Amino acid sequence: MARLHQNGTSSGWHVQASKLSLMTSNPIREVVENLKLTPNPDKPFITLSIGDPTCFGNFRPSNLTLNAVKDSLRVKESWNYGQTVGNLKARQAVAEYYSARQNSVSANDVVLCSGCSHAIDIVISVIASPGQNILVPRPGYMIHKTIGEGLGIKMKYYDLLPDCNWEVDLEHLENQIDGNSVAIVINNPSNPCGSVYTKDHLREILKIASKYRVPVIADEIYENFVFSGYKYTAMSSLSDDVPIITCSGLTKRFLVPGWRMGWFIIHDKHNVLAKDVRRGLLNMCARILGPNTLIQQALPAILKNTEEDSFNEMMLFIENQAKRACKMLKNAPGLRPIMPQGSMYLMVQIKIEYFPKFTDDFQFIKQLCSQQSILCIPGKCFNYQNFMRIVLTVPENILIEACGRIIVFCKTHFTDVHKII
Amino acid sequence: MARLHQNGTSSGWHVQASKLSLMTSNPIREVVENLKLTPNPDKPFITLSIGDPTCFGNFRPSNLTLNAVKDSLRVKESWNYGQTVGNLKARQAVAEYYSARQNSVSANDVVLCSGCSHAIDIVISVIASPGQNILVPRPGYMIHKTIGEGLGIKMKYYDLLPDCNWEVDLEHLENQIDGNSVAIVINNPSNPCGSVYTKDHLREILKIASKYRVPVIADEIYENFVFSGYKYTAMSSLSDDVPIITCSGLTKRFLVPGWRMGWFIIHDKHNVLAKDVRRGLLNMCARILGPNTLIQQALPAILKNTEEDSFNEMMLFIENQAKRACKMLKNAPGLRPIMPQGSMYLMVQIKIEYFPKFTDDFQFIKQLCSQQSILCIPGKCFNYQNFMRIVLTVPENILIEACGRIIVFCKTHFTDVHKII
Ligand SMILES: Cc1ncc(COP(=O)(O)O)c(C=O)c1O
Ligand SMILES: Cc1ncc(COP(=O)(O)O)c(C=O)c1O
Repeated sequence: MARLHQNGTSSGWHVQASKLSLMTSNPIREVVENLKLTPNPDKPFITLSIGDPTCFGNFRPSNLTLNAVKDSLRVKESWNYGQTVGNLKARQAVAEYYSARQNSVSANDVVLCSGCSHAIDIVISVIASPGQNILVPRPGYMIHKTIGEGLGIKMKYYDLLPDCNWEVDLEHLENQIDGNSVAIVINNPSNPCGSVYTKDHLREILKIASKYRVPVIADEIYENFVFSGYKYTAMSSLSDDVPIITCSGLTKRFLVPGWRMGWFIIHDKHNVLAKDVRRGLLNMCARILGPNTLIQQALPAILKNTEEDSFNEMMLFIENQAKRACKMLKNAPGLRPIMPQGSMYLMVQIKIEYFPKFTDDFQFIKQLCSQQSILCIPGKCFNYQNFMRIVLTVPENILIEACGRIIVFCKTHFTDVHKII
Repeated sequence: MARLHQNGTSSGWHVQASKLSLMTSNPIREVVENLKLTPNPDKPFITLSIGDPTCFGNFRPSNLTLNAVKDSLRVKESWNYGQTVGNLKARQAVAEYYSARQNSVSANDVVLCSGCSHAIDIVISVIASPGQNILVPRPGYMIHKTIGEGLGIKMKYYDLLPDCNWEVDLEHLENQIDGNSVAIVINNPSNPCGSVYTKDHLREILKIASKYRVPVIADEIYENFVFSGYKYTAMSSLSDDVPIITCSGLTKRFLVPGWRMGWFIIHDKHNVLAKDVRRGLLNMCARILGPNTLIQQALPAILKNTEEDSFNEMMLFIENQAKRACKMLKNAPGLRPIMPQGSMYLMVQIKIEYFPKFTDDFQFIKQLCSQQSILCIPGKCFNYQNFMRIVLTVPENILIEACGRIIVFCKTHFTDVHKII
């Protein structure tokens, strides 16, 4: 039964966007857009905001990684459609990589995706339904919100404790769980906190997951990004009964964020994930037909040839940057940097009460940009107020220059209200 | 408020899959799985089922394409995160490619995606909401169903006319449109039909779209795949008032299906797409952060260096294969091949009444496989009964061998019921 929408004028067009698409919002993009940044034209603009270690020019993928792709270019399998879950050889390479380093993984439990974001997208879309909720850290990288909210999935936030190295507030976590909770997201090492959890702490989290029968999504894209004296433990290596889906990829460790090669790994010793869940995961992979097969073809060589030395060098660099920035920013009145233990970020508390000219951290960051041409990401983007995140992978001289300007800015605007009163 | 799901036994786990993920089904995969194929071990297995021109070894991407990627490998932008809608230079290259060949396109109207499938995924997710419907061709490539049904979007099928070169049954199309119709999908040249529409026919379709104010999604992944005597016309070059979103990519024309480089282009002369729609499209791109930047970096060189000669050679090959297969299969009693005008497929009608041993085309195809080791895709996968689709990009000798076996199979099982009675 045909029906005319409107009479025949061209203004009769009404093309609307779906709620899904309008609710799929990226907090970082939206907040940065709202900042309406106007850097100071007299000072070169420094962005400490982008979580891409390759974008400043000081880090680049190893020659082994690049050659692995070059060598794959003329192989037929690099052009052909791949399997929607990823080609067997590539999945096997991922399974071997983890089996050698963490715990036994089978290629059948590996699914390749277009980046870790896509892995998280697929896992959340399968495990959670509208009206259900997933538990996510606060502060935390907000991709779960971007992915889940448009689908009608609720985010429930559990607190991290800044004074205990950003460990999970276990009591709060437990209290947030309800009958509609379908997953706990653990991001370790963490963006934005830079925390690295101990085995014991991870075990405590697993205890709660087990008690309430809530599976864990372990976002370990920063696996091995730890400073000296700390140890990265894969969540999955501690699990006895809790099904854990680990999400990771080449992005950070192998310095190729643009290649969009990620994966998730199903750890489910006792087969408690319904057959449906595996079918659902398979189905969701069929939407866009797997990640780039050229990179898949190169994956075995890339993963086998990991150059520990250059990675360790990078980690040492990041650690020194963290120390340097903390040391400097301790001299910025009104700020409190919290020394990270890993990943590539530093969280800095803004004691906003000492900056009465600024109504909130948002104003602080906006003015920091327009006066000093420094861009940091406001804590708001991680659902956390009065903090800002600094990316540590920028070149040393830039970090020093940036911290210097931040100190000047704070000295200019710091007002000891207690002294005034 | 914490609540225990179950008492503490490990059987207390209940992890379910979302409706979205269970409804996201791929008809080709499901039907082929259900066929439970057992090829005849005495005959080499020939698959005429995969729409990948590179998987048989006779077609490969040009050296220009491969070298463009090789040359991009050491460029920083090939590792960095890209823009979520695709990097400007790559979008510009796509805009220039189409501006030179079809009609003026701006880089702002181009969005790069992980394959044409992903382009279609994003466009449908933005334009359609649960309860609304989109009009899709029957027979047709069923990706819209895979993508839309899990989201609660209804598919309404408009018929194509096998006796009129698979043109759209315009009256049927018009009758299928209702107040909840939000898009008409036109796939030209067509998978599986191989039809190529005339300008006049496309104009007739646009007239209906205009009358009912329904935007068009033009799936033109087989653009330029036309046989001698036929002409491909871009839907967008004919549009006056109808907003058209064209989906395409490198996949077929450039022979790199595995690279997952696709795009959609917004043609909306009179700005009738609400601002919301562009925002929604942008939002959806942020879920997985754009396609592989290595391929994006190579895109300008790939698109500029299109080798018309080798493409024309490939089209001539496919046309000859189509003629050959049609000629041969006319000798298969009970079959009726419908000569295509382009793309890379041939539809063959199975007059099932002449094969009383088989209850339906599904049985026919299953037996064709177990007796003759030939796999064709049953029409069911395209929502069409008593047809099968043959892929024409296989090597010549394989196609001839396959048609020969199909003829033997038909001669064995053909029963002229009218003569018996
Ligand atoms: C915690 C976390 N998870 C996931 C991602 C996304 O990784 P990818 O670029 O592989 O999609 C990021 C990127 O910054 C991240 O910080
Ligand atoms: C009509 C049609 N549209 C879209 C696609 C998907 O293309 P891509 O591999 O670029 O996702 C195909 C693939 O066969 C197709 O036949």
